[in-house]
Amino acid sequence: MKIVLDAMGGDYAPQEPVAGAVQAAREYGIEIILIGRESEIRAELAKHETSGLKLTVVNATEVIEMTDESVQAIREKKDSSVVVGLNLVKQGEADAFVSAGHSGATFAAASLQLRRVRGVERAGLATVFPTKTGLILVIDVGANTEVRPEFLIQFAQMGAVYVEKVLKRPNPRVGLLSNGEEDSKGTPLVKETHQLLRQTSGINFIGNVEGKDVLAGLADVVVTDGFTGNILLKTAEGTADVMLHLLKQELTANLFFKLLALGLKPAFNKVKKALDHEEFGGAPLLGVNGVVIISHGRTKAKGIKNSIRVAREAVQNNTLETIKGLFAEAAKAKAATRE
Amino acid sequence: MKIVLDAMGGDYAPQEPVAGAVQAAREYGIEIILIGRESEIRAELAKHETSGLKLTVVNATEVIEMTDESVQAIREKKDSSVVVGLNLVKQGEADAFVSAGHSGATFAAASLQLRRVRGVERAGLATVFPTKTGLILVIDVGANTEVRPEFLIQFAQMGAVYVEKVLKRPNPRVGLLSNGEEDSKGTPLVKETHQLLRQTSGINFIGNVEGKDVLAGLADVVVTDGFTGNILLKTAEGTADVMLHLLKQELTANLFFKLLALGLKPAFNKVKKALDHEEFGGAPLLGVNGVVIISHGRTKAKGIKNSIRVAREAVQNNTLETIKGLFAEAAKAKAATRE
Repeated sequence: MKIVLDAMGGDYAPQEPVAGAVQAAREYGIEIILIGRESEIRAELAKHETSGLKLTVVNATEVIEMTDESVQAIREKKDSSVVVGLNLVKQGEADAFVSAGHSGATFAAASLQLRRVRGVERAGLATVFPTKTGLILVIDVGANTEVRPEFLIQFAQMGAVYVEKVLKRPNPRVGLLSNGEEDSKGTPLVKETHQLLRQTSGINFIGNVEGKDVLAGLADVVVTDGFTGNILLKTAEGTADVMLHLLKQELTANLFFKLLALGLKPAFNKVKKALDHEEFGGAPLLGVNGVVIISHGRTKAKGIKNSIRVAREAVQNNTLETIKGLFAEAAKAKAATRE
Repeated sequence: MKIVLDAMGGDYAPQEPVAGAVQAAREYGIEIILIGRESEIRAELAKHETSGLKLTVVNATEVIEMTDESVQAIREKKDSSVVVGLNLVKQGEADAFVSAGHSGATFAAASLQLRRVRGVERAGLATVFPTKTGLILVIDVGANTEVRPEFLIQFAQMGAVYVEKVLKRPNPRVGLLSNGEEDSKGTPLVKETHQLLRQTSGINFIGNVEGKDVLAGLADVVVTDGFTGNILLKTAEGTADVMLHLLKQELTANLFFKLLALGLKPAFNKVKKALDHEEFGGAPLLGVNGVVIISHGRTKAKGIKNSIRVAREAVQNNTLETIKGLFAEAAKAKAATRE
């Protein structure tokens, strides 16, 4: 198996992606193709013990910056790590692409270069999310601001495949994000999607879920449009930040508290770990014709390694093939109608 | 000043509302009209020392249950505490109405009985929200699932009045909730509202705010539709719950941790207090022709007392009159166009 890693992506590139790639190559024994400015990558690689590891470097001279506009960037920066890296996947020279860079540009490039799986109307940007009972998947979290019910149905189907294959949860519970649990709650989009999900076979639809239910872990897959999913994701991140900030403020208010808090450090670290995006290992872009994993921009080596782990599991467990199979029938039926 | 309290509203009614009313009457020296089943209220009042306090009881035999459908409930339960209580405000016999009961029914009853302020297109359900830098107001959080840009502009205007008058923050910063800070981000509704807010005078519009920005306290008033606002509110509540749950779990994992955590109790209590909805004192329903404050359903005596405090401040600082003045001109202009 070969996994392409965008060595120029993320706030700590190329240092942390390269360090993460070294760790992943050692731990999983797979080949990692580091893509980006070769001299910079080689300079970072020189800092590590890499003998015996399957690490290769492919040169790409351009870098998509976080301030770049997505579509413009991928059109103009043909020799960027994102564009060149995704081409390796497209040409079958690699099995998956991992990046902690500009998620919008990666989404746009993947849609354009790999194209969508046949029968899929829109690719969805998902994210893995910590809850009271473990990790769940939320789809979409920002790629599709405007959606139609049919897109959400497909997000539910693809999300369920991913959760089953990668999070290893059989028959995942699918919830539709709404402002109330009752079937009648929600925008017209939500209400129509709710009815369609009820009629969709092969999905374990448990009904509407509220923001609180998502955090309580009542569903394994939470389906929503990219606008609302982004609000959910950012609000949860922001709330956790505020709570950690308040805790830190109070636990360092005096020397006595500081000493006690020091003794509790292992406990606090466990809480932090449960919420740490670096542990979850990146979020999948579902519906494109290839395995693409997007890491948080602030990801360090550990998060990169875990993103590569997740990519490997998605490849090993045939996530993409399963999604293709799911929509092949639908695509055929649609093609027949067109003729 | 006279404030009507729904003694039958909330998960702990009538016990906690009555206890909160006693506290508020003592602390603020104002008259509280307790409304609900008279015998039950009097039985609760008998448990307290109430001599010298201005507490009166008005009988209302019916109770709107949390499982009732809002509009049906207020139509069928004419002798409920909500309907009878709001009538006292309508008839000028009281200055404000406070309830920890069914917020949807209270919203519907207030809209129907008090009617909207002239010129206001939709009443908005707001909530006060703790952030890194203090309390802010989010409007709407569930009453209006489908909105037009003009509704959101008015929510911004009314929210700013409330924050200035009750949270005592001059020239409040108004942010529009979106999936990115850039002006170009958001649904068509958000984009159109953004442009209109830029053109609205008398508002300190700071642009789009993300879920994270809300929690960081970057705006004093956050404007959104009721669907998205509900997701924001419930996600923040759920995230705080999960974090407190994880902390509790780890800090009680062994006896040593338990002992250390015991010594840190004052620090933990401060964090809890900063996040405690009972401290904020209820959320205003803005745009109806009366002062209406809605408390969290789980509110106990302290929260009821603080909700009465907030209602009192809204009355004292002429929140309603200011909102009326704000829209009187617009209403006149509109009426002139119609003729």
